[in-house]
Amino acid sequence: MDVRRRVGLNLKRFRQEKGLSQEALAFEAKLHRTYLSGVERGVRNPTVTVLEGIAVALGVTSSKLLDEIEEPQQPGA
Amino acid sequence: MDVRRRVGLNLKRFRQEKGLSQEALAFEAKLHRTYLSGVERGVRNPTVTVLEGIAVALGVTSSKLLDEIEEPQQPGA
Repeated sequence: MDVRRRVGLNLKRFRQEKGLSQEALAFEAKLHRTYLSGVERGVRNPTVTVLEGIAVALGVTSSKLLDEIEEPQQPGA
Repeated sequence: MDVRRRVGLNLKRFRQEKGLSQEALAFEAKLHRTYLSGVERGVRNPTVTVLEGIAVALGVTSSKLLDEIEEPQQPGA
């Protein structure tokens, strides 16, 4: 899985666990909502500084945003 | 500690543990040696894609490069 996709999925999971909207998190992290949305969709390539800002706003460590994600096994794989 | 400094210190530690020169690691990660040197010194702000490329070349997960570092306690702190 592409690292940007991984970051996006982790970010979305943590954001939803915190019960935050994209808009609320973007405000906290001092980012534009459309940029944050792009990070979640895996189409943006954030720097480590941006990643850290998002992590701080979520109350997690930035390394958590890079955690590996277990992909569901494909039938026959 | 600034996230860029943290990434730099983790990177240098893993690189030295692997016995790799900056030049050898830069070659593996398809980066310029001076850029890699800047990441190690904490003066560059790599994207998650670049971080992942460095991590793969080092044989570690990219989340490891963001791991917290215990700072030695200052006297009187």
